Amino acid sequence: MNCRDTLRINAQGHLEIGGIDTVQLVKEFGTPLYVMDEEHIRKMCGIYRQTIEKEYNGNGLVLYASKALSCLAIYKIVEQESLGIDVVSGGELYTALKAGFPTDKIYMHGNNKLVTELQMAIENKIACIVVDNFTELDILDALCQKYGVQQNILLRINPGVEAHTHQYIQTAKVDSKFGFAISNGSAEQFTQYALTKKNLNLQGYHCHIGSQIFERDSFALATDIMLQFIADMQKKYQFEASVLNLGGGYGIWYTDEDVKTNINCYAEYVKTIITQLRKKAKEYNVKEPFLLIEPGRSIVGEAGITLYTVGNIKEIANLKKYIAIDGGMFDNPRYALYQAKYTACIANRANDKATEIVSLAGKCCESGDFICEDIPLAKANIGDIIAVFSTGAYNYAMSSNYNRNLVPPIVLVKKGRAAYIVKPQTFEDIIRNDVLPEYLK
Amino acid sequence: MNCRDTLRINAQGHLEIGGIDTVQLVKEFGTPLYVMDEEHIRKMCGIYRQTIEKEYNGNGLVLYASKALSCLAIYKIVEQESLGIDVVSGGELYTALKAGFPTDKIYMHGNNKLVTELQMAIENKIACIVVDNFTELDILDALCQKYGVQQNILLRINPGVEAHTHQYIQTAKVDSKFGFAISNGSAEQFTQYALTKKNLNLQGYHCHIGSQIFERDSFALATDIMLQFIADMQKKYQFEASVLNLGGGYGIWYTDEDVKTNINCYAEYVKTIITQLRKKAKEYNVKEPFLLIEPGRSIVGEAGITLYTVGNIKEIANLKKYIAIDGGMFDNPRYALYQAKYTACIANRANDKATEIVSLAGKCCESGDFICEDIPLAKANIGDIIAVFSTGAYNYAMSSNYNRNLVPPIVLVKKGRAAYIVKPQTFEDIIRNDVLPEYLK
Repeated sequence: MNCRDTLRINAQGHLEIGGIDTVQLVKEFGTPLYVMDEEHIRKMCGIYRQTIEKEYNGNGLVLYASKALSCLAIYKIVEQESLGIDVVSGGELYTALKAGFPTDKIYMHGNNKLVTELQMAIENKIACIVVDNFTELDILDALCQKYGVQQNILLRINPGVEAHTHQYIQTAKVDSKFGFAISNGSAEQFTQYALTKKNLNLQGYHCHIGSQIFERDSFALATDIMLQFIADMQKKYQFEASVLNLGGGYGIWYTDEDVKTNINCYAEYVKTIITQLRKKAKEYNVKEPFLLIEPGRSIVGEAGITLYTVGNIKEIANLKKYIAIDGGMFDNPRYALYQAKYTACIANRANDKATEIVSLAGKCCESGDFICEDIPLAKANIGDIIAVFSTGAYNYAMSSNYNRNLVPPIVLVKKGRAAYIVKPQTFEDIIRNDVLPEYLK
Repeated sequence: MNCRDTLRINAQGHLEIGGIDTVQLVKEFGTPLYVMDEEHIRKMCGIYRQTIEKEYNGNGLVLYASKALSCLAIYKIVEQESLGIDVVSGGELYTALKAGFPTDKIYMHGNNKLVTELQMAIENKIACIVVDNFTELDILDALCQKYGVQQNILLRINPGVEAHTHQYIQTAKVDSKFGFAISNGSAEQFTQYALTKKNLNLQGYHCHIGSQIFERDSFALATDIMLQFIADMQKKYQFEASVLNLGGGYGIWYTDEDVKTNINCYAEYVKTIITQLRKKAKEYNVKEPFLLIEPGRSIVGEAGITLYTVGNIKEIANLKKYIAIDGGMFDNPRYALYQAKYTACIANRANDKATEIVSLAGKCCESGDFICEDIPLAKANIGDIIAVFSTGAYNYAMSSNYNRNLVPPIVLVKKGRAAYIVKPQTFEDIIRNDVLPEYLK
């Protein structure tokens, strides 16, 4: 927990975040509650931005991968920190635009962008579209012709680096729904075809080797392979890529199994990339490209905690102890989806040592609904507040109304103040789009 | 596909549902689109209701397990079919109440019901609360005392029957977050404690042995064990259970691996339970209880299909063929969650024989986002309409705005007419609860 300097235990033995006692937060806002620490978000933005400024003469841009957490306030913070963003849907683009995000720092991703999404991107003059496939090249080129614009694009490429991570969050294997592989020649064909498109301005390439990766070597390897590919395309087609987007994927602390040592690792990760980029650009005799990186999880993940209240406790002798909380897979489906591991504590007795192995069971009517299984925790009582750490990324973003449970609100905390950035959902919200046809009444 | 007599291929070779050409549906409503077949829903309700009427002299009630699909229209249809319902949250109860569902046929479940949910149940005088644990007995008894009411309850019991199904959807193992097991004596203690509660009227027991089960023997076994337990409690505590709720769990057809033969199996399943109930009641010398069963998936599952449009196709030689569709894990997370299998066809060329093995890739920026992997399909082209079958249960119910994609609407079809029962979500909807604190502006 050494990254999060605004997370501490106060004199009452309560967990405190952003200068506010979590017990106080629960009194004011109830549970379940997502809490986001603004200082930590800004700190992470700063680390990435400054590393590129210092180590690469500012020849790059950090894009916040907003799929990790997309809401008006986050885009505003990221903008104030001088980052760009990537969006992966019309909905994310819409939200960013509503937050007034500068469109010349917006990049769009997606393996199957809808025509309406591409139109939205063109109409709003976003910086760049990362094209995934041949069909998209055709559609986008035709749209640009119609709109009379020249659109900057990158191509999504698979360098074939397999980072050591969970199978569900690997994306750079040659067998991927995203982009085209260098190894089988399809990335080259993709490049050739893109270069024929009159209304598209190919700037370079994008790759993304996976998620929750701590092995800096895998990023260095991907950088090398991408530079080789750039050199190869330059030689064969006189195409000089000016932009290289290396995606995201650096890991965060969820549990002590995650090998991150301290917050310097993020600067080190970027430095590793930059060092390799300079070395290989020289070696392969290509221009040092404008560097894009896309951290998402590492910007908002550890900044977030989720607070729950213990509703009941059930011990099955010699088998399992269930701590039932008022949230579940509707606010955090990552355990159900990936068996993702989290760390928790009792927020109102945060100094108490973990003495038991328990499972945090959600309230959904589904036997697989857990936030954590078999984690160490201090002895919990009914009414205790449970804090689950590192829930800032892919929790609210993946939330649902499963069982028609309400999505919890998000409060942003900073220097002792707290404010909603996402209001509590209401029952009215969940039936808002329900329609009862006349003949059924 | 033999259950669904309103699903057929028309003269144009298009898939037709409820008397409407799916190609026409897509022209009118777009994709992705959930389509629900009203006749099939009513037919399934009727099969269950009539089997209890005929085979058990109507000494029971079918409760639609509304977590499978909860929206105003479904509650209305189910009410018109003279079924009761079970709800598992305040949100489901709220929706049912808004649909005007008769409260004396509403049952409430949940392993961790909120105090506010219990209050809502009491205030609306619902038929019965299925109590999960000791704490809930305490809270509910105190609330009833306060409200001056006597509340009918059942207790959730684990008979310990392990049906053969996916680990994520097994719920009757002794190690479960739900209820208490007979085998270790905890169900007996639970009964004893419930009987001490002055404001609670214990009517009997509830169990649920799992989901997507085709083995009728496992239901017969559970029935036997529950009856034995009832007899045991009667002998020891002079408590005569008048109600037995055997939950849901009978399977539906997703693929030809599912061993269902025809629609008669649902009546056979209920008959199996009733035959066993009568036999064992006599054998153990207890009164034949009022029977409750809770089908959810089997009422709405096969009634639903989802329609998608093919956006692009990517073939990785000797590895995989990806058909990218305009939906994904945001409208159907069941493959990502459980590796659940589905069957699909090309709706606009529904007679075409499946000649390829393909994967239906969703549009989410996540490598695990598939609706199906490696399924047989006719050769698809860009712009084709893909129909995925048996998506009526736990699709809309589990949908999310992941990647800020919009939840598709639901149209209800019947005898050639189609009407929204859930309207399309809009971008405005997804930022409705976003708040930008003043100091961030």
